[in-house]
Amino acid sequence: MNAPAVSPRHRVFQVLENPNRADRLSWAVEIGLIVLILASVTAVALETVPELFARFHTEFRLFDLLITLAFTVEYIARVWAAPEDKPDKPAWLARLHYMRSPMAIIDLVAILPFYLALFMPLDLQLLRVLRLLRIYKLARYSPALTVLMSVIREEAATLLAAFSILTILLIFAAAGAYWVEHAAQPEAFGSVPAAMWWSMVTLTTVGYGDVTPITPMGRVFGGAITILGVGMAALPAGIIASGMADHLHRRRDRLREEFRCALEDGHIDLGEGRKIERLRRELGISREIAHGIHQDVRRKQFQRLQCTCPQCGHEFQHKGDDE
Amino acid sequence: MNAPAVSPRHRVFQVLENPNRADRLSWAVEIGLIVLILASVTAVALETVPELFARFHTEFRLFDLLITLAFTVEYIARVWAAPEDKPDKPAWLARLHYMRSPMAIIDLVAILPFYLALFMPLDLQLLRVLRLLRIYKLARYSPALTVLMSVIREEAATLLAAFSILTILLIFAAAGAYWVEHAAQPEAFGSVPAAMWWSMVTLTTVGYGDVTPITPMGRVFGGAITILGVGMAALPAGIIASGMADHLHRRRDRLREEFRCALEDGHIDLGEGRKIERLRRELGISREIAHGIHQDVRRKQFQRLQCTCPQCGHEFQHKGDDE
Amino acid sequence: MNAPAVSPRHRVFQVLENPNRADRLSWAVEIGLIVLILASVTAVALETVPELFARFHTEFRLFDLLITLAFTVEYIARVWAAPEDKPDKPAWLARLHYMRSPMAIIDLVAILPFYLALFMPLDLQLLRVLRLLRIYKLARYSPALTVLMSVIREEAATLLAAFSILTILLIFAAAGAYWVEHAAQPEAFGSVPAAMWWSMVTLTTVGYGDVTPITPMGRVFGGAITILGVGMAALPAGIIASGMADHLHRRRDRLREEFRCALEDGHIDLGEGRKIERLRRELGISREIAHGIHQDVRRKQFQRLQCTCPQCGHEFQHKGDDE
Amino acid sequence: MNAPAVSPRHRVFQVLENPNRADRLSWAVEIGLIVLILASVTAVALETVPELFARFHTEFRLFDLLITLAFTVEYIARVWAAPEDKPDKPAWLARLHYMRSPMAIIDLVAILPFYLALFMPLDLQLLRVLRLLRIYKLARYSPALTVLMSVIREEAATLLAAFSILTILLIFAAAGAYWVEHAAQPEAFGSVPAAMWWSMVTLTTVGYGDVTPITPMGRVFGGAITILGVGMAALPAGIIASGMADHLHRRRDRLREEFRCALEDGHIDLGEGRKIERLRRELGISREIAHGIHQDVRRKQFQRLQCTCPQCGHEFQHKGDDE
Repeated sequence: MNAPAVSPRHRVFQVLENPNRADRLSWAVEIGLIVLILASVTAVALETVPELFARFHTEFRLFDLLITLAFTVEYIARVWAAPEDKPDKPAWLARLHYMRSPMAIIDLVAILPFYLALFMPLDLQLLRVLRLLRIYKLARYSPALTVLMSVIREEAATLLAAFSILTILLIFAAAGAYWVEHAAQPEAFGSVPAAMWWSMVTLTTVGYGDVTPITPMGRVFGGAITILGVGMAALPAGIIASGMADHLHRRRDRLREEFRCALEDGHIDLGEGRKIERLRRELGISREIAHGIHQDVRRKQFQRLQCTCPQCGHEFQHKGDDE
Repeated sequence: MNAPAVSPRHRVFQVLENPNRADRLSWAVEIGLIVLILASVTAVALETVPELFARFHTEFRLFDLLITLAFTVEYIARVWAAPEDKPDKPAWLARLHYMRSPMAIIDLVAILPFYLALFMPLDLQLLRVLRLLRIYKLARYSPALTVLMSVIREEAATLLAAFSILTILLIFAAAGAYWVEHAAQPEAFGSVPAAMWWSMVTLTTVGYGDVTPITPMGRVFGGAITILGVGMAALPAGIIASGMADHLHRRRDRLREEFRCALEDGHIDLGEGRKIERLRRELGISREIAHGIHQDVRRKQFQRLQCTCPQCGHEFQHKGDDE
Repeated sequence: MNAPAVSPRHRVFQVLENPNRADRLSWAVEIGLIVLILASVTAVALETVPELFARFHTEFRLFDLLITLAFTVEYIARVWAAPEDKPDKPAWLARLHYMRSPMAIIDLVAILPFYLALFMPLDLQLLRVLRLLRIYKLARYSPALTVLMSVIREEAATLLAAFSILTILLIFAAAGAYWVEHAAQPEAFGSVPAAMWWSMVTLTTVGYGDVTPITPMGRVFGGAITILGVGMAALPAGIIASGMADHLHRRRDRLREEFRCALEDGHIDLGEGRKIERLRRELGISREIAHGIHQDVRRKQFQRLQCTCPQCGHEFQHKGDDE
Repeated sequence: MNAPAVSPRHRVFQVLENPNRADRLSWAVEIGLIVLILASVTAVALETVPELFARFHTEFRLFDLLITLAFTVEYIARVWAAPEDKPDKPAWLARLHYMRSPMAIIDLVAILPFYLALFMPLDLQLLRVLRLLRIYKLARYSPALTVLMSVIREEAATLLAAFSILTILLIFAAAGAYWVEHAAQPEAFGSVPAAMWWSMVTLTTVGYGDVTPITPMGRVFGGAITILGVGMAALPAGIIASGMADHLHRRRDRLREEFRCALEDGHIDLGEGRKIERLRRELGISREIAHGIHQDVRRKQFQRLQCTCPQCGHEFQHKGDDE
């Protein structure tokens, strides 16, 4: 062990919850868990192929047993080490708090079905699908995913509004198609809910082609709906684009603010440098861009600070310009 | 009633047109109306399924009667309370003004067909579709939808230009496909209007596949059109993305301006704080971002307030005398 | 005539090339020409329907004759009035210059086939398609279209690069699909050019479904290509979005610059106001946004200009902040 | 030769690796190579058509021999001239360094299969596909492509995150479709891997239609997945849009920085002008935009240079001594 002074519980916490590249063990555990998750999901998917299931029945069960054991150990270790994150709370409270976090619930869902199936008869299909959810355990390992998810969360209200416009258009398209086509195609357009299938497939530009308008009026109406579909697809793309750009600027501005504070006294000392570096990695900003921000802040700060009068030699603070 | 001092008409206005979360009754009415709208639209959609209509014929009629009554009461109440919004106008003028607003017209369209059908024989199909329009009553309840709609309205001219490029390409694609394919497929590509169906389905990347080019030349031309289709789909996405970003900046700038005004005298007093908070919610800007804007304005204001007289060297706080 | 002082040629020029809403005649001519263009294109499209052509053969010919005459008069009038645009050049040079502009060439192409067909036998199909090109005459009438076209032109190099990435992926996808599928489907994937049809339809997410991989390996490969297709469609959308936003900012900045110049002396006089208003309309910027820019420039200008020392009363120019 | 003073090796280097428009020979070689690449790829694609291969067997072989020879000469010339790029290194090291660059490896892959096939029996199919890779040799000739590729590289982490969201949704959609549809369609939805084909085709909005849900529950679920598909397609579009805009701003900022440095002393001298012009072309910024940046920097610099001493009131030009 390369950190003998820390307690075992702190070490487990470091390895599982606070991994960094320099720590070999923590890195190995991270890679190992990612491989286990992928292997587990692949096995569950392959299990649904009837031929494979018939032939490798025992192997699939054994593999699932091993993986469930590994994930159980992981879950217990995480719960046990949780108090390290909140040293000021009682241990049981910190653990309870951790157990209610989304990632911990996903971890529990990944193992619970196995144990439940020991005590009561569970549908095999349900078990399989629940085991597929293990893929969500991967969410822990990608910082860019976190950024993307937070953009989606921030834009949720606007995306929901786009979705409600889509819903209104879906109903409108289905009603229109039902109106013009239900005489010609009583099967596919016989009711508004039936026509909904066509309107969903068309407005999302998926276009299976299993159901299409065949009357001239239906094709004129259907053509207009395909064009609206292009417009509909543009809404979420526009919302995400604007949200991504805004999120990016705000992350940069936070780093810029940090540089500004640190440069108040004219230079960045060691502590400030470390703090900035940590923030930079947390925000997922590249080293080059951070350097550019540093230069920019420095230049502006410098201009604001230094000025010498060539006539009387008086030094004063010239507040020249600010972004 | 938790507001005994207000007149009944004002109370009705508050509950229906100016809902806020703290007012329990207004909140309950809002939720109730949303549920009614959704239930009504679902019922109309289900009614078009022949089996359901045959079996629950009476129930559908009764349900529609009840919902129409509820919406009628709502409409009358809104019209009656309308003068509260414009206290300086005569009541009848305020009501007329309200009745001509888009939301009031939608409310009227949602109930009128029922009453018209009492006096004259109306086509059942038409009645159903008109009742489906009730879904538009939902528009009142989503602020994000309002933002999205205003972005679409602002970008209308550019979206229309994109649509006209699409139209030109549609005609060009249909003419080309007619030219190369009408010998091989006289049915699907027998005339330019007929080929239009293929060109719409292709340029919007819907791609049903019910009509596809089969000659080698047709496939070369069709392939080029599919690629143009990707470009076409990019136009509205780009327009919306740029419009969303711009709208966002302008909303932020309005809040920034409010902070700037409030901070003219160096601090935000209670009244200014409330005004800013109301604007913040109206513009749909999160608390964190508003805080960032506040900090930014404060920092710049401070720099601006610091002023040095070049004649006597006195340092003083510059007060922007107007704006 | 409401402008008796101008020469007839200048009047024709005003009406045809420099229309404004206040001039009733110019407005009527603009609407009339748009209607003629749309009617002409609709007629050509309908002519390709065999039944209609058989029945209204004479009417179609007559209608085409009339429209061609109208467009001929329009073309001659435009060429005749062209010197008004370049008063410092000899008339014939100005006319030659005008005749070589893209819009003039489109106008010529719209009428020339009719006259050529009088002297030599021309294929009816070719004539029809050439007449369809009249739709391009519409380009003259939409300012938003001009903006969109200039964004596309500015981003042409990047869009071409996206297209070349698409080409490389198309060849790669076709070669891969040929490799894995040509044994199972010798018809659809029998050669790389044949597989190209599938790869175009898939990478553009059109997805007709007339040709799809059927082997397991083919579906794994095909699935990967569909995902690449989503990425490919993102490229032009991203390019246009970024280009639109940039173009918008530059147009705003030009108006801002104009305001800045005009406000140098503290106020906007009548001539400056008119110049700004003309630029505003030319750039397609709304009145509200122009007002916001005005306020913004004024505020900054004001801060920079006015400062009074409270100690000695000295007035001086404080250069506080600048955007 | 129009540059007799330079050594032959330097001339070869200039022509091949550092082409500029003024140098006629370098321009001709560039065009020639692009034509050769395109001709070569077209020939390989046509070779896979059985009829053409049977008929022009000898011609295809001869053409491939000629092109391979040309590319071999090009490769040897590039390796030979490589030391010109790094005059301070020993020639063999510079050559080794060049041979390990991505473009050199592509050049090698474009010719190697031909020589390998002389010594050992290679699969004809494999040879063809390897020859198709010659298309990548084009990458050298497009600066916009370089920009696009660097945007994609910068956004790689976020695009990967979007891809991982897509993967999770793919598995979820396949599992759900398997659950609701495998009884009705044991062929297409008989296992999760089989249902994956449908979920890929649907979530990417390709929508072949070869496999579609047919049960009512399957269509409700499928419809929801098509809507998620629109959202999924929005993610990469948003990421690329935001990345493009950011990259554009950073390129502009680099040019702005260059102008700022050059204008420190109040004017741009000849050397500075040339350096800025070179950077402008390298960054792919248009002349108009560069001019706008110049004006902007000049205006701000002027304000910044104007400085008033608070002690003696002397007005002077402030010279930023370093930066």
